[in-house]
Amino acid sequence: MDFTLTVLGTASAKPVIGRQQSAQVLSVHGRSFLIDCGEGVQMRLQQCRLSPMKIDSIFISHIHGDHVFGLPGLLSTMGMLSRTQPLNIYAPANFGPLLKFFLSYYGEGIAFEIRHVPLTMKEPSVVYETKSLEVSAFPLNHGIETLGFLFREKEPQYNVRKWKIDEYGLTLAEIGAVKRGEDVVRVAPDGSSLVLPLAELGYMPYQARSYAYCSDTAPFPEEASWVHGVDILYHEATYLEELSEMAAARHHSTTLQAARCALEAGAGKLVIGHYSSRGQDIASYEAECRSMFPSTFAASDLDVFDVPLDKVEP
Amino acid sequence: MDFTLTVLGTASAKPVIGRQQSAQVLSVHGRSFLIDCGEGVQMRLQQCRLSPMKIDSIFISHIHGDHVFGLPGLLSTMGMLSRTQPLNIYAPANFGPLLKFFLSYYGEGIAFEIRHVPLTMKEPSVVYETKSLEVSAFPLNHGIETLGFLFREKEPQYNVRKWKIDEYGLTLAEIGAVKRGEDVVRVAPDGSSLVLPLAELGYMPYQARSYAYCSDTAPFPEEASWVHGVDILYHEATYLEELSEMAAARHHSTTLQAARCALEAGAGKLVIGHYSSRGQDIASYEAECRSMFPSTFAASDLDVFDVPLDKVEP
Repeated sequence: MDFTLTVLGTASAKPVIGRQQSAQVLSVHGRSFLIDCGEGVQMRLQQCRLSPMKIDSIFISHIHGDHVFGLPGLLSTMGMLSRTQPLNIYAPANFGPLLKFFLSYYGEGIAFEIRHVPLTMKEPSVVYETKSLEVSAFPLNHGIETLGFLFREKEPQYNVRKWKIDEYGLTLAEIGAVKRGEDVVRVAPDGSSLVLPLAELGYMPYQARSYAYCSDTAPFPEEASWVHGVDILYHEATYLEELSEMAAARHHSTTLQAARCALEAGAGKLVIGHYSSRGQDIASYEAECRSMFPSTFAASDLDVFDVPLDKVEP
Repeated sequence: MDFTLTVLGTASAKPVIGRQQSAQVLSVHGRSFLIDCGEGVQMRLQQCRLSPMKIDSIFISHIHGDHVFGLPGLLSTMGMLSRTQPLNIYAPANFGPLLKFFLSYYGEGIAFEIRHVPLTMKEPSVVYETKSLEVSAFPLNHGIETLGFLFREKEPQYNVRKWKIDEYGLTLAEIGAVKRGEDVVRVAPDGSSLVLPLAELGYMPYQARSYAYCSDTAPFPEEASWVHGVDILYHEATYLEELSEMAAARHHSTTLQAARCALEAGAGKLVIGHYSSRGQDIASYEAECRSMFPSTFAASDLDVFDVPLDKVEP
């Protein structure tokens, strides 16, 4: 029941020694999702011992080179490793020609299907769903079509308190109702009814977990509400506060803007990255954010952030 | 008067930890030439403290991804660094659409001119020339249009032995003749002539140096003669000898095939790379080559091979 973020790259437009460009893996219940795919992603995947074959699907925020130039190599390697599982790439519409051109030149050795799922939206919308996970995309503010992603575990099925089964002699149908999150209602032959409340019979075994990716973006009014209550918010913080004018001009965020989003969203933890190549004093980035949002972590490449299962006692 | 090879990447189709894909820099008399451009080249350039802005021109052997997927990032970075100097890329004709597509999607921030010089040839032919250097390209045997490159210093101008100037009272015109590598011929008024031989009056101050890049290729009959007498031969050795059938099937070379080329060419030194991801025991590659050609060096990323100036005493 993992829910683990591995940050593969924390540089912005230009890689610097020790920092590759934007890419991350979120692993949820054994499925691995690649979020953005900057140059050098293959090396980073090897370093964290994750086979490219394990990648379930890919989410691309936007087509700037520092978020996609690792794709041609990664897709080619998947082809050489004889991947057969189809691969969905969720990305803005303007990603389509990139993929098409790549396949026209390098598609020969690729036997698996690569499907671009074009995303366009004005507000959050579910784009991926499994039994236990839901991924929404939402527009960011970067001067080019750019998407944020919110990964959210679905609420788990209720567990039934075993001693309540004996106490009330619960039937299979009644146990089913509890698991679905319903009260048990017993109607006697005389028409009278007895309600056995859900809260007494069952409990949710853990809290659903969530992760949001907001990069690249300048602040915008809806942002915090769209990632409200998220466990981990990854937010770009390209610039220190003193470069706020440059941040605005380039549709990026400063440290304090990232921290404000985390604060207003009530996030559990803020992870920052996408540092400008001008400023490599990452401690300063972290300190500036912490002045507003103490639970901030300035990521380095290959950092791992785990959201542990918050188990509820019966 | 440098003549220095820096190997940036020694992996083949798939990068492995510590080995990026094919790319090299040859620095000659202060000019830097990039040869192939696999993914990760920007990081490697930073590690060897070479600014992308210093790259004079780029030579691409062929369009397989492991030789070109570093280009989009590198060209974008040159754009961000505000390069203005035009950049020539010498590459096979089928490189053209790759560059064209890249520029259509990512050309906006690129203010310098990128010129693809399309190369097609059946035998060695000079493709680049300065006062002191000549670069030839020649076809390799890789199942797709692929080029090798030979970088050769031009023969230097002769130096004149100073005491011979006094001894014979050489005129400026006669000194000029010696510098051009000619004997001095003096004709007396009576028609008789006196020859002052070049070998007595002058000397070549150093031996012209050379470097050849042969990757990717299976062996072929003309190869050794086309790189005859080269100081350093870089030759791919994708496979150990036991995988010679796979090498043949994939148009690659084994260790001994690389060594045989060096031996027949009378190369000064053989540098090998482009190792298959199957075999990471590089010492075995080196040992197999050395059994035939002792002066073999199995390159690792960031290895530097210098050809020192072989100065001649007056």
